Amino acid sequence: MFADLAEFHQWLAERRRAHTYEVTRVPLEDLDGWRTDERTGNIVHRSGRFFSVRGLRVDTDRRAIGSWSQPIIVQPEIGMLGLVVTVVDGEVHCLMQAKMEPGNINLLQLSPTVQATHSNYTRVHGGSRVPCLEYLSYPRPARTVFDALQSEQGSWFLGKRNRNVIVRVDRPFPAGEEFCWLGLGQIAALLTEPHVINMDSRTVLSGMPFLDGGVSAARSASRRYGDGTPLHSDKEVLSWFTEMKTRTRLDRELVPLGSLPGWSRENGVIARPDGRHFSVMGAHVRASSREVGEWWQPMVAPSGRGLIAFLGRRIDGAFHILVHARTEAGTYDLVEMAPTVSCIPETYRDEPAGHRPRYLDVVREAARDRMLVDALHSEEGGRFYHAESRYLVIDVGEDFGLDVPSDYCWMTPEQLTGFVCFSNHVNVSARCLLSCMVGEQLSMSA
Amino acid sequence: MFADLAEFHQWLAERRRAHTYEVTRVPLEDLDGWRTDERTGNIVHRSGRFFSVRGLRVDTDRRAIGSWSQPIIVQPEIGMLGLVVTVVDGEVHCLMQAKMEPGNINLLQLSPTVQATHSNYTRVHGGSRVPCLEYLSYPRPARTVFDALQSEQGSWFLGKRNRNVIVRVDRPFPAGEEFCWLGLGQIAALLTEPHVINMDSRTVLSGMPFLDGGVSAARSASRRYGDGTPLHSDKEVLSWFTEMKTRTRLDRELVPLGSLPGWSRENGVIARPDGRHFSVMGAHVRASSREVGEWWQPMVAPSGRGLIAFLGRRIDGAFHILVHARTEAGTYDLVEMAPTVSCIPETYRDEPAGHRPRYLDVVREAARDRMLVDALHSEEGGRFYHAESRYLVIDVGEDFGLDVPSDYCWMTPEQLTGFVCFSNHVNVSARCLLSCMVGEQLSMSA
Repeated sequence: MFADLAEFHQWLAERRRAHTYEVTRVPLEDLDGWRTDERTGNIVHRSGRFFSVRGLRVDTDRRAIGSWSQPIIVQPEIGMLGLVVTVVDGEVHCLMQAKMEPGNINLLQLSPTVQATHSNYTRVHGGSRVPCLEYLSYPRPARTVFDALQSEQGSWFLGKRNRNVIVRVDRPFPAGEEFCWLGLGQIAALLTEPHVINMDSRTVLSGMPFLDGGVSAARSASRRYGDGTPLHSDKEVLSWFTEMKTRTRLDRELVPLGSLPGWSRENGVIARPDGRHFSVMGAHVRASSREVGEWWQPMVAPSGRGLIAFLGRRIDGAFHILVHARTEAGTYDLVEMAPTVSCIPETYRDEPAGHRPRYLDVVREAARDRMLVDALHSEEGGRFYHAESRYLVIDVGEDFGLDVPSDYCWMTPEQLTGFVCFSNHVNVSARCLLSCMVGEQLSMSA
Repeated sequence: MFADLAEFHQWLAERRRAHTYEVTRVPLEDLDGWRTDERTGNIVHRSGRFFSVRGLRVDTDRRAIGSWSQPIIVQPEIGMLGLVVTVVDGEVHCLMQAKMEPGNINLLQLSPTVQATHSNYTRVHGGSRVPCLEYLSYPRPARTVFDALQSEQGSWFLGKRNRNVIVRVDRPFPAGEEFCWLGLGQIAALLTEPHVINMDSRTVLSGMPFLDGGVSAARSASRRYGDGTPLHSDKEVLSWFTEMKTRTRLDRELVPLGSLPGWSRENGVIARPDGRHFSVMGAHVRASSREVGEWWQPMVAPSGRGLIAFLGRRIDGAFHILVHARTEAGTYDLVEMAPTVSCIPETYRDEPAGHRPRYLDVVREAARDRMLVDALHSEEGGRFYHAESRYLVIDVGEDFGLDVPSDYCWMTPEQLTGFVCFSNHVNVSARCLLSCMVGEQLSMSA
């Protein structure tokens, strides 16, 4: 454990020095182990394992543009994101791992204790043991705090879900040189720094409020923006969610990646002529710290920095956030509860106001002193190349009207957190923002 | 409102006399308005609306037979099952509708207030007004008690869901001659009679415990088998559910109905040569009480009476039921919480003990005085022809071991009910059994 964050950063720098990593962009044609299917143009691994990049045709009544085609990552297996926690001197501590992911801007970030694919963690292919997996596997020697299937980025993944788990053990234990125990207060502080806590950690941390017993920090953090009666009861919120699903038409069909309207493959990259949204590129990775020292893989590279924001305001004393019922190309079950705004603003630079995502302008015009959370984080570095998003929570003040379009709903952060323990309710961006909010409150109270 | 059940039965008999209904089995070739696709053999409506019968290939690791092909009903739209309730003299009353469905053995049963397809209730095709729909449509003039998407029979429907809604109004109102207000005690009594309360009513009634406020009947009924601490906390149950989903492989592919291995179409019926499971048949319906006086449709006819049973026992004073994590051909999300046993026992008549569904023999050998619930009900009469199931809850006593296979979990009825308000947790058979249990307790306490 670290006396302070300076000591932690020293440790992280050491971990960085202990290994060499090198990530190079290469043409999709040069990905060793991968092939482009002659007939479909889909990019698949020669073993049939891992994941594939395919084409998806989407037709829905819930987006400004109702029909489109796009490349999408298909990875039907359920991975494991597991966090082991314990309590030391009354403070929750989390076992974090320094993990290299090729898409991270700074390569090395903190992952949860276990971040494993399904094949890894069920060990169907043999392979090396996943450290600390024994705390998460059934039957568990540790108490379950939280255990749910959660969705990943629906814009780039088709129905991908990971199992998010938090277990509590009685005392800390040594777990190897890539691991460290961090107090929740330290994690909270690190959540305000750019590119330290990786996406997998942030999504798991959104389950932290389900820790109960004498540990008040996490739980009180979920009530962080003042107690008070929510504008809508949980029952009303669930009814709204059901109404949104019932109204949503989402027809999807996997189609050949090779003949996707609006996309072309040139110079070893799949992209749109207008450069919008994202591209599919190849990466060559050399790492001394992974089981395999060298590998190749396709990655999704977004065309600009993402913006993920909750607008919020007090309603009768209780802070509420404006939740959006959002449908994305890969959404597992029609809609999920999402941040007020999630987009790549660059995409809409030249669009007239009416064509920009709703509330984007409110976010852009917000004064800095209204930003309760303002942090820069990486998206999943195993599949996404240099994908970073600015996470914001903005207090828009009580002059902001309560009347909102029918696909938006005011909830307290605590209400939204309550739905996190049920699968496919809260999307990954919203979960990450909730974690930042816990962090923000903890660092304020620290 | 009826002074007693005799009066109700008189009313129901009158409703029956007021209309003429006639359902005739006809060859699939003779279904006016429907056609068999030449290339695939799929049965589709000429308008492209309603539903289709297609082939499904299933490959899973969660059933005794891991791979099979079967006909399946594809109806991607979300229907509405809505119940309007009110409180009169302290007792909850429900607005029920006498509704003819061609598959019902006795044709006329009680449906919820509204039982409408998506096209009906959004009125995209014009069509006649659905009575009482205004109480269920957004924005609602009535208070929402319960509002969730719920799965239908996964053995015969591919991922079909209906919206189950209960709303509460301030006072009863006259709703037309096909409608009646029944007290919850009367409904409870009717739930013990065969073929009166239809499946759509039973699934919606499983949301009745979410009625709160001064109305104690329904809520106390959800605690009906004694208070006490559940063996597993809700958190542990959700973790078990997540574990079951993570372990489940369920690969499905829609395939042509015409070339389905193990099934053949002869004499206008699609069936298996061994006669097992079910067949797909044609029906001609004449009714004076429906918008359309005459129509044709394909229907699924099961090969025998179904058995749907919970085994239960007291654990430390609290009654628990043994819930099965069940995967069916059409299950929306890998597994759902299901009764201990659900099958057509006839299918397994000649199988040796080891090849019969687990716990089927325990149900068969149960003494009559251990049966807390024993009722005969129809499955959905709009799609299933003469599909009836015996619904049982059996108290197996405290000698029955608590150690169960990993895909079973002991829960209190109240715990299971708690998951009903979240979509895709509790399957239709389990929800119907929960309604029968509420009924049983209410009629005991009446």
